[in-house]
Amino acid sequence: MRNIWITVSYEGSAYAGFQRQQNALTVQEVLEKVLQRLTGQRTVLYFVARTDAGVHAWGQECTFHTESSIPGSRFRMAMNTLLPPDIRVRVSRDMPLSFSVRKQNRGKTYVYLLTERHSPSPFLRRYTWACGLDFDIHNMKACAAVLEGTHDFTSLRGHNSVTSDPVRTINRIQIVPGEEIWRIYVTGSGFLYHMVRNMAGLLADAGRGLLDPKQLQTILEARDRTKLGPTAPAEGLCLLHVYFEEITEITVNQAEEEPVFPWNPGKTKRS
Amino acid sequence: MRNIWITVSYEGSAYAGFQRQQNALTVQEVLEKVLQRLTGQRTVLYFVARTDAGVHAWGQECTFHTESSIPGSRFRMAMNTLLPPDIRVRVSRDMPLSFSVRKQNRGKTYVYLLTERHSPSPFLRRYTWACGLDFDIHNMKACAAVLEGTHDFTSLRGHNSVTSDPVRTINRIQIVPGEEIWRIYVTGSGFLYHMVRNMAGLLADAGRGLLDPKQLQTILEARDRTKLGPTAPAEGLCLLHVYFEEITEITVNQAEEEPVFPWNPGKTKRS
Repeated sequence: MRNIWITVSYEGSAYAGFQRQQNALTVQEVLEKVLQRLTGQRTVLYFVARTDAGVHAWGQECTFHTESSIPGSRFRMAMNTLLPPDIRVRVSRDMPLSFSVRKQNRGKTYVYLLTERHSPSPFLRRYTWACGLDFDIHNMKACAAVLEGTHDFTSLRGHNSVTSDPVRTINRIQIVPGEEIWRIYVTGSGFLYHMVRNMAGLLADAGRGLLDPKQLQTILEARDRTKLGPTAPAEGLCLLHVYFEEITEITVNQAEEEPVFPWNPGKTKRS
Repeated sequence: MRNIWITVSYEGSAYAGFQRQQNALTVQEVLEKVLQRLTGQRTVLYFVARTDAGVHAWGQECTFHTESSIPGSRFRMAMNTLLPPDIRVRVSRDMPLSFSVRKQNRGKTYVYLLTERHSPSPFLRRYTWACGLDFDIHNMKACAAVLEGTHDFTSLRGHNSVTSDPVRTINRIQIVPGEEIWRIYVTGSGFLYHMVRNMAGLLADAGRGLLDPKQLQTILEARDRTKLGPTAPAEGLCLLHVYFEEITEITVNQAEEEPVFPWNPGKTKRS
């Protein structure tokens, strides 16, 4: 028995999220079918993050056990030959059987992309929330600071969230303005269902002056998810990076410089 | 009667090209239907470039005549509200009735994008030809120089080309290497059917050492389109800029700095 680790990148537009579902096509199902074709064995994929329907990933981390004799590093090419072009394996390698992406990950960075309400580009729509960019960055940053740290995030969890413990630690929220795209990077040890999208919605409200840090503090302390406005749409969200080392200022800085999207083509080489 | 000039950007993936067709959905048809809804009148769009199925545009230039009282600059927002998100009007303005994009344009710049054969990004596939980037740039540039200038381009025209005069002037071909994407900018006064895609195919062959300048010269002088290899795929091609001034070194440099794709989000504002 061997343990193979793969780093997977996907455009989520065509999928009902990552995790296998009964009646909808998911990224996990497509990957597992390709592995079955390659190895001749039913293969179960272990992964770090369930991502919602329409959410993208640059660095989803997965492992699978196999009896196959295909060298670890060859799985990348072999899988990419069979996968549809909206799912790519970026790296593959052999790992000790004890290695578990789920148990050993220390956290994740997501990025959420916002653009103009009437963006002149037809090429951004799958990857951004066209909410307008007329933002007050100082108020956004002040509100982001309220969300950083260890809190009970009950107010920010989605209606379908089932986790019993709503306490999570957000290590850093970084807001990077741009001419056509603003980026919100959120790094934390764990996330509740819809938590990043709810943060993006709150921070956009903050940018528009509809919310100040004190009001956000009140929402957070209410521990009541009905206090929240609408969840920001899935297409703006991308799972950027999973940490297997302790999250520090240095590791976060490295992750935020990671490639994400076609608009960083010069930086998309990592392996 | 008024004459309205619009600059249109579109992702061509879902369309059978720009020009209206009997049995297939085109960008022109979608734009004309939106204009009919807005103005209550049947409206005919005049445009600069027929682009093939799957080809994109950042700056397709069009005009239409209308009796509508909508101010010229308001057409942009009004049309974008009704258009699908893969077609955007970037600029709209009133022009004298004598202005014709077809008669008054002096040329165009196209850009053709090439990427790795097994690109790790699922986000580039709609906009690039994944042909591999193991290129010899010196040989590519030497071959590009053979194509620049005024030539009979019969050898580079597509099978369906119907124009009687096959002589065209290519002002400049620029090859810009990158880590994940190489760009080929082609500027000329006019182009035959499939001409840029055939140039991209030839230059990729040159990059791989399958073609030297002398052989290319022979192909060009043969004036025989059967001498040519396969046409590069549509998805890598994008109509970038249309010139209404004389094409000079300066105007070409300006056009090549123009925004194109999501990976230049900081530069996508022009109007």
